[in-house]
Amino acid sequence: MDPDLSALDATLGDCDGYLVDADGADSTQRYLSGFDAPDPFLTCYTPAGVHLLVSGLEYGRARTDARADTVSRLSTYDYRERVSEAGPVAGRAAVVADFLADRGVDSVLVPARFPLGTADGLREAGVTVRVDGDDAVTRIRAVKTDAEIEHVRRAQRANERAMATAESLIESTTVVSGVLHHDGEPLTSEAVRRAIERTLLDEGCALDETIVACGADAADPHDRGSGPLRADEPIVVDIFPRDKETRYHADMTRTFLRGEPDPTLREWFEVTDEARRAALDAVEPGVTGEAVHAAACDVYEAAGLPTLRTDPTTETGFIHSTGHGVGLDVHELPRVAPDGDALEPGNVITIEPGLYDPEVGGVRIEDLVVVTAEGAENLTEYPVELVV
Amino acid sequence: MDPDLSALDATLGDCDGYLVDADGADSTQRYLSGFDAPDPFLTCYTPAGVHLLVSGLEYGRARTDARADTVSRLSTYDYRERVSEAGPVAGRAAVVADFLADRGVDSVLVPARFPLGTADGLREAGVTVRVDGDDAVTRIRAVKTDAEIEHVRRAQRANERAMATAESLIESTTVVSGVLHHDGEPLTSEAVRRAIERTLLDEGCALDETIVACGADAADPHDRGSGPLRADEPIVVDIFPRDKETRYHADMTRTFLRGEPDPTLREWFEVTDEARRAALDAVEPGVTGEAVHAAACDVYEAAGLPTLRTDPTTETGFIHSTGHGVGLDVHELPRVAPDGDALEPGNVITIEPGLYDPEVGGVRIEDLVVVTAEGAENLTEYPVELVV
Repeated sequence: MDPDLSALDATLGDCDGYLVDADGADSTQRYLSGFDAPDPFLTCYTPAGVHLLVSGLEYGRARTDARADTVSRLSTYDYRERVSEAGPVAGRAAVVADFLADRGVDSVLVPARFPLGTADGLREAGVTVRVDGDDAVTRIRAVKTDAEIEHVRRAQRANERAMATAESLIESTTVVSGVLHHDGEPLTSEAVRRAIERTLLDEGCALDETIVACGADAADPHDRGSGPLRADEPIVVDIFPRDKETRYHADMTRTFLRGEPDPTLREWFEVTDEARRAALDAVEPGVTGEAVHAAACDVYEAAGLPTLRTDPTTETGFIHSTGHGVGLDVHELPRVAPDGDALEPGNVITIEPGLYDPEVGGVRIEDLVVVTAEGAENLTEYPVELVV
Repeated sequence: MDPDLSALDATLGDCDGYLVDADGADSTQRYLSGFDAPDPFLTCYTPAGVHLLVSGLEYGRARTDARADTVSRLSTYDYRERVSEAGPVAGRAAVVADFLADRGVDSVLVPARFPLGTADGLREAGVTVRVDGDDAVTRIRAVKTDAEIEHVRRAQRANERAMATAESLIESTTVVSGVLHHDGEPLTSEAVRRAIERTLLDEGCALDETIVACGADAADPHDRGSGPLRADEPIVVDIFPRDKETRYHADMTRTFLRGEPDPTLREWFEVTDEARRAALDAVEPGVTGEAVHAAACDVYEAAGLPTLRTDPTTETGFIHSTGHGVGLDVHELPRVAPDGDALEPGNVITIEPGLYDPEVGGVRIEDLVVVTAEGAENLTEYPVELVV
């Protein structure tokens, strides 16, 4: 099932079409065109259909792979001649103007990051170009089709295998002077990260970053972690891979501890798991991201722990949002945060409460769920256990 | 040694500065700012210095890591208030306008792909925004500093280890019914690619694509290859990794054959190696990329093989350019092609002649070299041998 783009019609206002000029790594381009190419190409959505303009090199593949009603080639519009006359930027823009004219498009809405060189050239050719300040496509993207949900589910399965690799590695260690050792060497954040990356590679996934953060590192939600892992301290493992084929992401966090947690850590883990379950229980269509976030805050505050809701300046406790949307981007709409709007069936969101204090370390537990007509389905099957 | 940005001064014309609004994965942004961040930030080059505008989250790291004279925070310009008043696009642009005004900048030159939302907002605030149709920064980037050359050299060392992994794997096979077998299973393009990716991961490199193409697949220079590898057929292995830390690329191709090459293939390999050496010999400052390309064409044509120079419509023979620049982008200036300009010391270019014919397969040999004051230094130490 293809995404329903007709919601764009209302956004267009008095514009004839929605125009994107970007490569396939751009999520809006990927979504509108259904096509992946390494160099920028044009996609024009109109209520009558989706039209692509690509290089000759990509033409054959675009005709079979893209979700388009028509595919045109740059050469049809004398691309080479016009670039050699007017230069690469103005020449290309003139070609795009003709491509639009052929489809009866005189005015276009474009994303805020649409390239200025193309926009200036189109305006010079008499095309009206207006910036979509409301980011309509990212709003439409927030509601996933069944096929998109399957892409996310598949990425989360790969993610679980990577998490199992990390957990096994940590579990396999012996403790020497408080430091975890594997094969006679200290086990480092970097080594666990590499094992995770290898597993994901074998699963067809790619990732630029992974968090494997121990002790004080784990107390900073943005610290990727480095150096030897230590016994009796929490190790936050947060993995957010991208499926190389579909480009959809997954996201999951677990916190592991090798050895004996002190009573504070044990309590932190339990209350964070309770916050996770409370937030999960709150998820259903019509409930706001704000209310889901509030459900997690309620649990922490009832346990006497600081949150940003009770103290906007706190640097310890629950110091981030409860979650975010996941799809072609690893962070996208909807927000599961103080300003989060009402959830809809098809939203895919993380639920990831956590507690942080440099004196104690960090604890975070993150699941990935899809909002359904009835409530929510958890796409995460990985167990939640602290001590390994 | 930092890149010499003063060449931008001449390009500025009557503009006060060169402005970039992009994340750290954008090569122009990375080059001007020396900074890597996952979300878009602003860099303004002026003859007096380089000025960054970043979010509070990136501020500390930007102050230590970036190549900037000043680093400012969005919050200094009441970012939140202005976004809630005017929306995310117009509010952010208003902040950028104030940031520029503080530096006495009333007019900016910007890359062709500068975001329209920011440009429209700046123009509304009275700032002149002009598109740099000549892509000045990519021209400056084509001449590398010693530090940049070391980054490329390090990536090429990693690349050689990956190539050795691929060669060993192919060499380790036995032949069953014409198909290469490893550990009792057919060895596929995909399996070799995975072994390459694993090695590169261990070397701190990332890559989105690798070519491991056998037989008819190898006859299409853009085919990544798939399925079982066969004996007595050429296997083109083209690897172009990016160092994850520096973001600089390497690039290398070798063609391997397990078994017995037929006389045509053997001749193709030898003449391609001769074309490679002839092109390498031609590289020196002042010589054009066009002349280097011609040196490769000369060898092929002397051997009676078709090139695009003798027959612009040929679909077999030497059907691409001799090379391209390599740096923060895997394809960048200078061109080593029919329209290539004069080479300069510090250019890093590939030399990659090849022959293609679906009836025969493909052969390509690619080295990576730096143009020096005296001629060229080959950054590639990997042997050139067909039969493994």
